[in-house]
Amino acid sequence: MGGRVDDLLIRLDGVGPIQQQVYEGIYSALTDGRLEAGQRLPASRTWAIQLGVSRNTIREATAALIAEGWLEARVGSGLYVRKSPQQSSFPAITSGSRLRLAEWSERLPVKTFVLQEKDVDVDFRPGKVSEEAEQVFRRRRLGRWPSDMEPGRLSEYGPPEGDARLRERIAAYLRQSRSVRCTGADIVITTGTHQSLDLLSRLLLGPGTTFGVEDPGFPVVAEIVRLSGCEPFPLQVDEQGVKVEEIPEGIVGLYCTPNHQFPLGVTLTPARRKALLARAAKDDFVILEDDYDCEFYHGKMPSPCLQSADREQRVIYLGSLSKILAPAYRLGFIVAPPWLLDGLRKAKWIVDRQTSMLVQNSLLQFMISGDFSVHLAGMRVEYKRRRALLLEAIQSRLSTWLTPLDSTCGLHISARVNAGYDIDSLCRVADEEGVGIYRGDAFSSAGRASNMLVFGFGGTPVQEINKGVSLLAVGWQSQNCSLGLRS
Amino acid sequence: MGGRVDDLLIRLDGVGPIQQQVYEGIYSALTDGRLEAGQRLPASRTWAIQLGVSRNTIREATAALIAEGWLEARVGSGLYVRKSPQQSSFPAITSGSRLRLAEWSERLPVKTFVLQEKDVDVDFRPGKVSEEAEQVFRRRRLGRWPSDMEPGRLSEYGPPEGDARLRERIAAYLRQSRSVRCTGADIVITTGTHQSLDLLSRLLLGPGTTFGVEDPGFPVVAEIVRLSGCEPFPLQVDEQGVKVEEIPEGIVGLYCTPNHQFPLGVTLTPARRKALLARAAKDDFVILEDDYDCEFYHGKMPSPCLQSADREQRVIYLGSLSKILAPAYRLGFIVAPPWLLDGLRKAKWIVDRQTSMLVQNSLLQFMISGDFSVHLAGMRVEYKRRRALLLEAIQSRLSTWLTPLDSTCGLHISARVNAGYDIDSLCRVADEEGVGIYRGDAFSSAGRASNMLVFGFGGTPVQEINKGVSLLAVGWQSQNCSLGLRS
Repeated sequence: MGGRVDDLLIRLDGVGPIQQQVYEGIYSALTDGRLEAGQRLPASRTWAIQLGVSRNTIREATAALIAEGWLEARVGSGLYVRKSPQQSSFPAITSGSRLRLAEWSERLPVKTFVLQEKDVDVDFRPGKVSEEAEQVFRRRRLGRWPSDMEPGRLSEYGPPEGDARLRERIAAYLRQSRSVRCTGADIVITTGTHQSLDLLSRLLLGPGTTFGVEDPGFPVVAEIVRLSGCEPFPLQVDEQGVKVEEIPEGIVGLYCTPNHQFPLGVTLTPARRKALLARAAKDDFVILEDDYDCEFYHGKMPSPCLQSADREQRVIYLGSLSKILAPAYRLGFIVAPPWLLDGLRKAKWIVDRQTSMLVQNSLLQFMISGDFSVHLAGMRVEYKRRRALLLEAIQSRLSTWLTPLDSTCGLHISARVNAGYDIDSLCRVADEEGVGIYRGDAFSSAGRASNMLVFGFGGTPVQEINKGVSLLAVGWQSQNCSLGLRS
Repeated sequence: MGGRVDDLLIRLDGVGPIQQQVYEGIYSALTDGRLEAGQRLPASRTWAIQLGVSRNTIREATAALIAEGWLEARVGSGLYVRKSPQQSSFPAITSGSRLRLAEWSERLPVKTFVLQEKDVDVDFRPGKVSEEAEQVFRRRRLGRWPSDMEPGRLSEYGPPEGDARLRERIAAYLRQSRSVRCTGADIVITTGTHQSLDLLSRLLLGPGTTFGVEDPGFPVVAEIVRLSGCEPFPLQVDEQGVKVEEIPEGIVGLYCTPNHQFPLGVTLTPARRKALLARAAKDDFVILEDDYDCEFYHGKMPSPCLQSADREQRVIYLGSLSKILAPAYRLGFIVAPPWLLDGLRKAKWIVDRQTSMLVQNSLLQFMISGDFSVHLAGMRVEYKRRRALLLEAIQSRLSTWLTPLDSTCGLHISARVNAGYDIDSLCRVADEEGVGIYRGDAFSSAGRASNMLVFGFGGTPVQEINKGVSLLAVGWQSQNCSLGLRS
């Protein structure tokens, strides 16, 4: 470190007063590591000429940086870098501050759940969607928007529940595609299922209550529930879906994925559906139905949603565009029964006023233009092809080790490790072969589904599916994975 | 009502199985009022031919609608509409359900605050922005995006705190334009100030605490604070900004707008700034600084933000793009001190995973391309023109009734009603003249600022400003508003 900086080129962007620009330029040099502690700045006379500014300008700019503690003036020797704001620009707390987070924060998860991205050649990570979806969406939307868009207003706030035309479109789509009983008036548009669940947790749960969550299931649901002071209860799931007979007494509600259980992929049987609704009526609880990926069915249409069979306003239906379009698009919705609607609208208003009209507008235009239907149909064909290939490949090439579970829709397949085989060995070899496969118990707080593997194909094109299964077959065979007994 | 429907054209969209399409078509007819209770449907034989579908298809579709209670079959007489799902498609709750909202919901406001939109010719409603901003933004962004965008991914989740490149850009802007001490690493991108405040309330406040809010001020702040079980305390404001000496003991924090108080428009004086930071250190509380509209200054640059003078990590800086771009764009940010950052990132992850990449991408591209600076400079000129005109017009034509308050930036001007004049009369005449002006006490829970008027000019073009002030001058003069004494 140390030493004299002879000339320091700083970019003067031409916006704002000139001394502010100089200040910014020096600050940037500190931030991005071009200036380090101990270094001496150029002499102001020369530097002023280099930069084409007055010495006074430099003096004003550096005075501010001295005051902020980044530079120091040494008498007779010029200006030196005292420290650099590289990591964080905040001063250390010197006094006896007791600043701290409130009790609520203690309920935040220690580590937010994210499936670790594996450095692999072929990745079967669930939760991803085809990149084609993104490309198609961008191309179409951007080609059309300027010409025939009738956009909602950006320059004024709109209704918290979302644009009325968009809600009508979504309702029509849900009625047609998923048999949801709704009109646009029943819908509240959110920024996705995280927000939908957070809003509903705050509205419906509270300290001292218990709420059922599928386990294995989406880990974030239990985390969100916990933030309201409510205790999540892990509900068991088998090949018929959530085990209704195991639901404990006294819950205020439960979360389920009846149409394509995550991660097992199974469908809640008709008998269980009936039993679940009966049980909800008896114990007077609500059901949050998350219908996250049933747009993509692979044979006949999937079973109508649970909400369509509800006669008591107990089922609250959740959906999102994360699978149809893209996860980072962030648009979801809640079909709310009348008793919930007013509170839900208010809560949405409070927490973020409304979902961005940029996002709402783009979806509305996508639907009005007919591109939504075209896109959905195209993605159905693509995902159907991927799923058929993956299923066939597992059945024909991996049947020694795995037995896939039945599922009718969605973007992943689950498979049970056959008796006598060790999932740890299978996963270790997969890692060595450069194939990302995911364990079912990653989605369980109770260590359940420990003999299950989850294969997502939303982000895995056809040629990669073939390659991945081949690598697994060869690797498992050659490394004698048949010898490892299940622990 | 009643009667036979001879032919009912239903739209078959060509998506999904044909009986589903017929179901959907009939359902839509019920929803939009084309079919009403008591009406008889066309005979299935004829109707099938009309629609070009089989009778069996119609039978399956109508069977579902009968099962759901919308249609009924009368023996020997055909199908009738039993009821229509026009208002809501949810069945009434018949059993003794105890479904209800949790205690949290009781803290939701009875009525969410929205300034009533007035049916006027000229509207000085604060909170609006120029429509030009929207047009410019759309045109530029859309023209450029397909060609030279380096977008973040839509098809995968990104970091909860937001895109790293965008955070760097925002940090550079804030350092330069507002003297905020920050780097991109200190920033968490939110969906706007509502969400920023909700996140911070949950993280910092809790039952049994007290939090100061400016009064008059943004009403939603107290509403959000209340949701955490915390009691908002209305802090007094005068022409020097928030009255530091009146801050009660024992608060955990306060919210303020030191650079352009909303709605008074005044700037917190240097002496008060110093006193506020000293008081915060003494009582160990946090300060949420909302710097909502200081990008638009009208003379010299406005005072640097309070955060820049903080030496104890007590000031949490909030900003948004609502004024620079558009309110319904929904992008805001928090500059978080180190002790807060980890909790804030987790909380953001939980409540909505991340802000839409569609929104983040568009802003990033807007900034990378340089259009952001051009847009900002252009809007500065436009708003400066509007403000100068409005101020001059108030001073020259309305000085009998009003005295405008000093302000250096932002998109509104406040004015005090001169002693001896009655604000109720002034507002009544303004209504009659078709001019929307807004009372200061609309922004107070304590009935304060009852002799103040707020003139927003963000959504009021130059010619409307002239017209509005003329109408007020003529109306107030002719209706002898000088006669009404202040109540």
